[in-house]
Amino acid sequence: MLGVSRFSLIVRFYETDLMGVVHHANFLKYFEAGRVDYLKKRGVSYDSWVKQGINLAVAESHVKYRRPARFDDELIIESALAELKRASALFAYKITRGDDAELIAEGSTLLACVGAQMNLVRIPELVAASLTRAEIDR
Amino acid sequence: MLGVSRFSLIVRFYETDLMGVVHHANFLKYFEAGRVDYLKKRGVSYDSWVKQGINLAVAESHVKYRRPARFDDELIIESALAELKRASALFAYKITRGDDAELIAEGSTLLACVGAQMNLVRIPELVAASLTRAEIDR
Amino acid sequence: MLGVSRFSLIVRFYETDLMGVVHHANFLKYFEAGRVDYLKKRGVSYDSWVKQGINLAVAESHVKYRRPARFDDELIIESALAELKRASALFAYKITRGDDAELIAEGSTLLACVGAQMNLVRIPELVAASLTRAEIDR
Amino acid sequence: MLGVSRFSLIVRFYETDLMGVVHHANFLKYFEAGRVDYLKKRGVSYDSWVKQGINLAVAESHVKYRRPARFDDELIIESALAELKRASALFAYKITRGDDAELIAEGSTLLACVGAQMNLVRIPELVAASLTRAEIDR
Repeated sequence: MLGVSRFSLIVRFYETDLMGVVHHANFLKYFEAGRVDYLKKRGVSYDSWVKQGINLAVAESHVKYRRPARFDDELIIESALAELKRASALFAYKITRGDDAELIAEGSTLLACVGAQMNLVRIPELVAASLTRAEIDR
Repeated sequence: MLGVSRFSLIVRFYETDLMGVVHHANFLKYFEAGRVDYLKKRGVSYDSWVKQGINLAVAESHVKYRRPARFDDELIIESALAELKRASALFAYKITRGDDAELIAEGSTLLACVGAQMNLVRIPELVAASLTRAEIDR
Repeated sequence: MLGVSRFSLIVRFYETDLMGVVHHANFLKYFEAGRVDYLKKRGVSYDSWVKQGINLAVAESHVKYRRPARFDDELIIESALAELKRASALFAYKITRGDDAELIAEGSTLLACVGAQMNLVRIPELVAASLTRAEIDR
Repeated sequence: MLGVSRFSLIVRFYETDLMGVVHHANFLKYFEAGRVDYLKKRGVSYDSWVKQGINLAVAESHVKYRRPARFDDELIIESALAELKRASALFAYKITRGDDAELIAEGSTLLACVGAQMNLVRIPELVAASLTRAEIDR
């Protein structure tokens, strides 16, 4: 792993569905929340990249759902940079319940660095440096 | 393929994000919309199963994002039952843009038939029959 | 009323909540879908305005929930321009169920024309003309 | 006011829209998060009520949007029980930005106590007592 961060959130009521459990699409949102936090802890604001035209688009996602999460559960999202290539970065995630450390879900998202035409471009060196740096004390 | 159905929808404004494209988590929702339609065309109402305690939970999901989809795009979701096992069903999806047939995303979800304790249970025969039947004329 | 349009949509599974009914926040999204359609039928693409810096921000919203809507219900959204002022436009909405014409919800959103600093600005004449024009045949 | 509680949350990336600001429908979700917290601090779990068939349905909502909220903003949601009647409870909300105490939005939701047929029923005494009690130390 090239870097790991941990982030926690509380499941909100409207994120659960008819069956009283977190809708499976929301785990990609939780992964994103973890990734955004990973970057923030390395001094990067997600939307500053967007504004600079640096577009790390999600090219692929994979989720394994292990146990249902429910309303008001505290979830710990562990986000790790698993691989950094010329034009892509692979993040791996584990979501556990804060209460009992039960594994809720795990998965990954492959981010591709793309230009305006969705063509692959090299990840700028400063971006690569931010991705692999240690967490900044605050 | 054990069965295929096609379903179309229009991208709503609030499904797009800061970059003006459909947020990647929404594709799992579009897959679900396609799957629900697949069942409906075979005489099954998704929530009637829920009420009968038949719980086909999403156990795994996989998405490859090919091209961005934008507000007001018509998307065609092709949902296919790719594999049917004793306690699980694998659905495969292709999302294309209605306009130009551009491939937008593809992926799959593995559904596991689970009991109240999230233990695997055999898919009831009537459910299996519904899954593999042809579309019903309406 | 300065203009009325009708738009229909089918309630998607993930828009319902634990109680099996459409979550109340989604009605503001349905109102938006109706308003976007209102504009589209008058030759205006919502995001073209955004790109031109014309920002009709929602300043106020009001919803009365009459009857629950459920998964797979067809909803008819009637959007009407109720009032057009120098810097604001008031839209009124009625949502009925397609099946039985039952009134599901009604409400309004006040849109304010704002500049970059969120200061009120006059609605450009071309915009006002688009808002009050009749539906365009297509 | 019959009771007030404060709850804070951080705006998540996917809650913002094309314009980089929190989509207006999300404020009803934030109000709900505040209300859920209000109850939790008085010993009530929202979903335990649902399971007991006590259904405080949202009958009306009203929001005034004062200033845009952006990704990563900390928002403070102040939820107050403004009025308690035989079959309804009115909650009032103020959302401010943690950083600078700027008022972001304010509004209200009227909750009606309904039976299985959506008929109005008297709020059970224990529920009324929970609603008006002070925050419980934890």
